[in-house]
Amino acid sequence: MAELQYEFEHSRKAFGWAARDGSGVLSPFNFSRRETGEKDVTFKVMYCGICHTDLHMLKNDWGTSVYPLVPGHEIAGVVTEVGSKVEKFKVGDKVGVGFLVGSCRSCESCYADLENYCPKYIITYGAKYVDGTITYGGYSDFMVADEHFVVRIQDTLPLDAAAPLLCAGITVYSPLRYYGLDKPGVHVGVVGLGGLGHMAVKFAKAFGAKVTVISTSPNKKKEAIEHLGADSFIVSREQDQMQAAMGTLDGIIDTVSAQHPLAPLIGLLKSNGKLVLVGGPEKPLELPALSLLSGRKMVTGSMIGGMKETQEMVDFAAKHNVKPDIEVIAMDYVNTAMERLLKADVKYRFVIDIGNTLKPTTS
Amino acid sequence: MAELQYEFEHSRKAFGWAARDGSGVLSPFNFSRRETGEKDVTFKVMYCGICHTDLHMLKNDWGTSVYPLVPGHEIAGVVTEVGSKVEKFKVGDKVGVGFLVGSCRSCESCYADLENYCPKYIITYGAKYVDGTITYGGYSDFMVADEHFVVRIQDTLPLDAAAPLLCAGITVYSPLRYYGLDKPGVHVGVVGLGGLGHMAVKFAKAFGAKVTVISTSPNKKKEAIEHLGADSFIVSREQDQMQAAMGTLDGIIDTVSAQHPLAPLIGLLKSNGKLVLVGGPEKPLELPALSLLSGRKMVTGSMIGGMKETQEMVDFAAKHNVKPDIEVIAMDYVNTAMERLLKADVKYRFVIDIGNTLKPTTS
Repeated sequence: MAELQYEFEHSRKAFGWAARDGSGVLSPFNFSRRETGEKDVTFKVMYCGICHTDLHMLKNDWGTSVYPLVPGHEIAGVVTEVGSKVEKFKVGDKVGVGFLVGSCRSCESCYADLENYCPKYIITYGAKYVDGTITYGGYSDFMVADEHFVVRIQDTLPLDAAAPLLCAGITVYSPLRYYGLDKPGVHVGVVGLGGLGHMAVKFAKAFGAKVTVISTSPNKKKEAIEHLGADSFIVSREQDQMQAAMGTLDGIIDTVSAQHPLAPLIGLLKSNGKLVLVGGPEKPLELPALSLLSGRKMVTGSMIGGMKETQEMVDFAAKHNVKPDIEVIAMDYVNTAMERLLKADVKYRFVIDIGNTLKPTTS
Repeated sequence: MAELQYEFEHSRKAFGWAARDGSGVLSPFNFSRRETGEKDVTFKVMYCGICHTDLHMLKNDWGTSVYPLVPGHEIAGVVTEVGSKVEKFKVGDKVGVGFLVGSCRSCESCYADLENYCPKYIITYGAKYVDGTITYGGYSDFMVADEHFVVRIQDTLPLDAAAPLLCAGITVYSPLRYYGLDKPGVHVGVVGLGGLGHMAVKFAKAFGAKVTVISTSPNKKKEAIEHLGADSFIVSREQDQMQAAMGTLDGIIDTVSAQHPLAPLIGLLKSNGKLVLVGGPEKPLELPALSLLSGRKMVTGSMIGGMKETQEMVDFAAKHNVKPDIEVIAMDYVNTAMERLLKADVKYRFVIDIGNTLKPTTS
């Protein structure tokens, strides 16, 4: 069969679930991974979160997907082997891998611990690795990664809850920190209450900030305030609520990836306020320039975080008990989970129990 | 005649040039100004720059104009009277007034020396002053302003060249400073080479930055480099030139007020780069969100500056000999100047010689 090539590309047999084409349907897949290099960490995957990016990549929404595609970049597991020059990890350690498995290590961004902004970063699945082979993600039995791109997960943090921190967590933690929205006295808005949004609320609250959730759905109010701990809630379609909140926010973490108007959100900001896009709508948004001028406001974006900050974030989460709300699923439920994710029918993150439910195929 | 009311609104006769309607045509106008209050400075207007905003306001482009409208917010002159509680100025001092003549003095922005972002700021012409009367600008024989909104002009700075600093100067100086584009080692882009753009080049060079001008007009290259001192020049329509400069700029001061694409400019920025809009196009611009995410880039706006910073800017200009290139005109040339400004036919700022050419009418 044609797929045999993937089994013999490297020396170690691996298995996982892959999509073969833009239908995005996942099914069992036998492939292979490299031996543990001198700076590599090999770990058994225990849990892998389902990020909305996985759905985009499965369906080739961005036109960049390479098939067979094994998704997954919220990967948590236990070290089974380390290379001779690995310094930070040993067998048995709990570890994770997120969005990245490589970067150039020699550019301005890399030197500044911002591997996530390195022009040559290598993403965890569907990208060409330094050896020329294609990377495969965490919907698979084990991972091999350079230790620089592996983070330690404290024993106090359950591995299933840790997994989504590696993408959803760092994606909101990094801009909260970089834009100074990480302390008591600041008032942070969070737009959209999904995988990213609910983590933004939790981290902002853990930092001591005041948090207002802005949502199109009035029925999320109770959940946002009583369960997630937000201080207040604005229904974005209610003009009077939006009007009353004008000029009150120091910053907004906007997690919405659909087209949406920015002007009302910019209006909620104080002078010098920051609207941070982390959802990344595909089509251009409309930007009313004058609304930025009067108040020196800014619209900016942020994409995951560097490795140093990702470790800091996981440590912070462990210390302050910041954990995503997850629904743990079996591997063979993944296609149903993708359909539910498309309808935002999850509170708030699916995590695949790889360790217990990924069954090897008999090819 | 109906205009008599303006002559008797206040106790002191004043005269200037005003537009009576949205045709924007200026002609002589007799009006009046208040007595010198205890915190007020009265000064004879010697020069007044013509800002592009004047043209917008004359023609009611923003729907906010009040007629008769006496424009002018780049006003330089000599003090003739000071109120009993004025502390900073005395008769004979060279002074200026810019975009603002008032603010609430008690909000967060005012306390932070950012009167320009006070929600209740009072602009120099066409706005309601604290006494309920309408403000008139610098196309007039004298001004009365609270000393807080008056800046000192050093003797080494010619008054005609000082005038445009008060709006064009501070508009570009403030974001260069706030966004850290004010030192050797940074690479600043300047988009548009008009009144604002040419000042941005001069200030950025005075700060020691490397400066690249980005323009649609190849024929401005010689001028930009040889005369204004820019280090390099990119024709924005030349794909290869834009491509070669991708990811090289720490920040861009974008002075263009017409619709224009932001994506190519964002592409010129390094990671963490800042695109600062100071021109303020009226219609929304298209913002490609993903271009901000990859590189944590920002699009922001900036509008003039606070009074403390405006004084600092004038002092800096005097010390470093930063002066606008001006074409000094007579008062009765103003309507022709407006037509030329509309065609960008000026290098780079018209300044009206009010002191010598504004002739009183005999009403």
